[in-house]
Amino acid sequence: MNHPQDPVRSDIAWATSDRVVVHGLDLVTDVLGHVGLGDFAYLELFGRLPDTDESVVFNALVVALVEHGLTPSALVTRLTHLGAPESLQGAVAAGLLGLGDTFVGTMEGAARYCAEAANEPGWRSDDDALAALAARIAASFLDCRHPVPGIGHPVHKPLDPRAERLFTLAREHGVDPANERLVRAVASAAATRTGKILPVNVTGAIGAIATAMSVPPRVVRGLGVMARAIGLVGHLVEEHRQPIAAHVWHDAEQRATASRSPRR
Amino acid sequence: MNHPQDPVRSDIAWATSDRVVVHGLDLVTDVLGHVGLGDFAYLELFGRLPDTDESVVFNALVVALVEHGLTPSALVTRLTHLGAPESLQGAVAAGLLGLGDTFVGTMEGAARYCAEAANEPGWRSDDDALAALAARIAASFLDCRHPVPGIGHPVHKPLDPRAERLFTLAREHGVDPANERLVRAVASAAATRTGKILPVNVTGAIGAIATAMSVPPRVVRGLGVMARAIGLVGHLVEEHRQPIAAHVWHDAEQRATASRSPRR
Amino acid sequence: MNHPQDPVRSDIAWATSDRVVVHGLDLVTDVLGHVGLGDFAYLELFGRLPDTDESVVFNALVVALVEHGLTPSALVTRLTHLGAPESLQGAVAAGLLGLGDTFVGTMEGAARYCAEAANEPGWRSDDDALAALAARIAASFLDCRHPVPGIGHPVHKPLDPRAERLFTLAREHGVDPANERLVRAVASAAATRTGKILPVNVTGAIGAIATAMSVPPRVVRGLGVMARAIGLVGHLVEEHRQPIAAHVWHDAEQRATASRSPRR
Amino acid sequence: MNHPQDPVRSDIAWATSDRVVVHGLDLVTDVLGHVGLGDFAYLELFGRLPDTDESVVFNALVVALVEHGLTPSALVTRLTHLGAPESLQGAVAAGLLGLGDTFVGTMEGAARYCAEAANEPGWRSDDDALAALAARIAASFLDCRHPVPGIGHPVHKPLDPRAERLFTLAREHGVDPANERLVRAVASAAATRTGKILPVNVTGAIGAIATAMSVPPRVVRGLGVMARAIGLVGHLVEEHRQPIAAHVWHDAEQRATASRSPRR
Repeated sequence: MNHPQDPVRSDIAWATSDRVVVHGLDLVTDVLGHVGLGDFAYLELFGRLPDTDESVVFNALVVALVEHGLTPSALVTRLTHLGAPESLQGAVAAGLLGLGDTFVGTMEGAARYCAEAANEPGWRSDDDALAALAARIAASFLDCRHPVPGIGHPVHKPLDPRAERLFTLAREHGVDPANERLVRAVASAAATRTGKILPVNVTGAIGAIATAMSVPPRVVRGLGVMARAIGLVGHLVEEHRQPIAAHVWHDAEQRATASRSPRR
Repeated sequence: MNHPQDPVRSDIAWATSDRVVVHGLDLVTDVLGHVGLGDFAYLELFGRLPDTDESVVFNALVVALVEHGLTPSALVTRLTHLGAPESLQGAVAAGLLGLGDTFVGTMEGAARYCAEAANEPGWRSDDDALAALAARIAASFLDCRHPVPGIGHPVHKPLDPRAERLFTLAREHGVDPANERLVRAVASAAATRTGKILPVNVTGAIGAIATAMSVPPRVVRGLGVMARAIGLVGHLVEEHRQPIAAHVWHDAEQRATASRSPRR
Repeated sequence: MNHPQDPVRSDIAWATSDRVVVHGLDLVTDVLGHVGLGDFAYLELFGRLPDTDESVVFNALVVALVEHGLTPSALVTRLTHLGAPESLQGAVAAGLLGLGDTFVGTMEGAARYCAEAANEPGWRSDDDALAALAARIAASFLDCRHPVPGIGHPVHKPLDPRAERLFTLAREHGVDPANERLVRAVASAAATRTGKILPVNVTGAIGAIATAMSVPPRVVRGLGVMARAIGLVGHLVEEHRQPIAAHVWHDAEQRATASRSPRR
Repeated sequence: MNHPQDPVRSDIAWATSDRVVVHGLDLVTDVLGHVGLGDFAYLELFGRLPDTDESVVFNALVVALVEHGLTPSALVTRLTHLGAPESLQGAVAAGLLGLGDTFVGTMEGAARYCAEAANEPGWRSDDDALAALAARIAASFLDCRHPVPGIGHPVHKPLDPRAERLFTLAREHGVDPANERLVRAVASAAATRTGKILPVNVTGAIGAIATAMSVPPRVVRGLGVMARAIGLVGHLVEEHRQPIAAHVWHDAEQRATASRSPRR
């Protein structure tokens, strides 16, 4: 039964009794034992394995997103496990659901203005054009009282050391630095206008570098989702050994209702 | 403010203005650019980086789980994206929710009988004891008309090439082969009793090897969750380019209601 | 321990050993046995019970959203149950994740332009102003090649009978009909401009009526979420009795890979 | 196109241009404006509308599950909204994922032993047989150091007023009281054996009554899921007005890492 015209078609993988092929590679002979998880993730996004330089940078981008400590997502995964210990997949899925506009969305925001800038003339070779473009980008957010995506951090200042490291790696491994220059110029423009210390943060660096590596902006959020799934499993491992969810819950509940009930 | 006794405590990561430390490693100087995604996942589970042998085997285990084609999970992610294109994290989370007892649960089942066997005497050095233990394990499932976890495959027979490759890699890289022998013996016992061709499948191999590498059985499902999060992002990339969700939906809806409505 | 200033505070419910109070009502004496589920949902949104008229209309709005047949959400819930039968909550949650911009988002879109129109002068008493406003609203979507939220249906035309019934109920029970007039005018404007048959659909009617009843636009999507959670449990009941998920999966997988693998 | 034998078949709903039929009822003429949300939920589960008595009891069961204050689920929904405010459906879905074995699972546990007892002879008419069965049920949990499902409460003692009210309503409206007697006997047996004060709690009452009303045990959890979806939308309404998620997060993060970082 062959449906050459069938609109329901997927070209990612197929299998026979003795083979599994993923994006054209034989999983058994070409991949297992040879390809690391990060490079296989690259294969899933681009349909080909990365070269050595691409591998270093791509792995660094995703690794930088795995673990950010006791974030709302990590709390959510732990609290969900408290109620449904039978479903590890549910606890991780719940944590992923918080990777939206507030946190990983800033990565997507930075990616988006980098991708749009690709069509603008001049700024790559003309510093005045760069400054003007950056000021326009910063203004497009600040005029609406939105934070500029990819800029600023409560703890890491005056520089976010992760962003600096990722930019250095990217440059050393042949990624076009134009987006780095653009994001830094946007940060300067925003700092000048607001008078605040506004480093390019890790999400800004990732948005800029991923876009330079041809990850589409709407997929950039996916880097955070795949990375954080790993980190949330790690939080469940710690929660098993050193549980905190019940404490967080009881403290919040007690504080929230302390002033409401006549006696308790 | 120091709370040495605070029950709300997490030791995974901490940060200062110029440092981020994860499981004791400086993220910026020791990790980014040096550690691949699979090894970082190992760090999240074990609190230390893998050695070279552990790295090869662990990456292979997780890579083997990333992509299984158009599974129910992949369909779920694509159908969810159709309704909520604004939420990539929701589409991936929805797909992960199907990684339960039916599919990745078989990995956990195999891990569990391997972990329990660790306390049984004799079977490691005595083939009769091994056969007797394996028969007991197979019977414990078949007597309740349950499939034996980690055994059998609709397409891959008489052998699952992924399982064979993973076992070879594990042996070559120093993983104790006792669990491999146990799972193979369980498969033989089940085949003898049922008269079916029952290879050890990829989930059986992963359950056996992961347990030999000290992944706790209740965390084994987490390997599937972190791997498949990557694969599901890959399916969204293909869905953007070559959408199938609307076709799957319309076909199912039309078939389901064709015989119900008087006219349509 | 009293924290009058505590920012972690919730006023929805509190309990003592012999009482549970929700939004000021004694759950045991005032609610159970007296208040139906729909009215209790109203209490959750508004902090007070509905009067008789409000109850009829609100229940109708939510009931109209419970069951829309074999939607992508229903398929997702069934496919997720196939993989994770141990987790009914996961299967329902997965289905809800598809209630995004494409489907229930149209309800929110209609609610939003109704809410914004509340600040516009004149259109409630002047038919020309109404037509002008409606044309402006329709154009704001059509100019960007977006469908106008709340308008059009593939099956229900020239009228969506659910929308007509909800508008009639709302009028009979004292809901201000201004939003109904606005949505109908938007539909006319869109039909004129596009030359298509474009009825106000059920989501348009619900967006208009819910806004007239003071449901904030960003909460309107919540009506769909609470309603569909009920419907998805219903689909699981049918899936237990008459399973279809495995068929849908196998058909899609076979079609998708039929032309890809050399033999299978 | 008619597929009388098609295995992909759903009989819940179908539509033509001017009709929508759900479980045989015309949605427009028979349901909207006439049937409340709780009765429609009953229709989804049983395929028919409830009679007056069934309606009172069923609505009370579900209403009792909507709102339990600042539970882990409510915290999860609020924390998820903090990260992904664009996705109300994601925040509610995340909260539902915690409705597992720990909380709503106790309802299912009580339902399960009531359903199994239906096949046991004698206990309905013989108090000694009832006491013996109840002791056996209690022992089956306590022997494995598991809590007995449906029994005990940290705040509501010596009686859970919601359970008492639900039992009274059920008796007044014609529900067979055998399961009530069974759950009370199980509670007595557990109290005698442990020396603790162990009331039948609200989940025990709901498990017992729902089973007496023919809700299958594996669907009982669904009552909690549909109810809590409503309650979680209510928590988002309060979170919009009076946000607490950021406070809960920051407090937990500060406490968790206070003793770990050298300076912060």
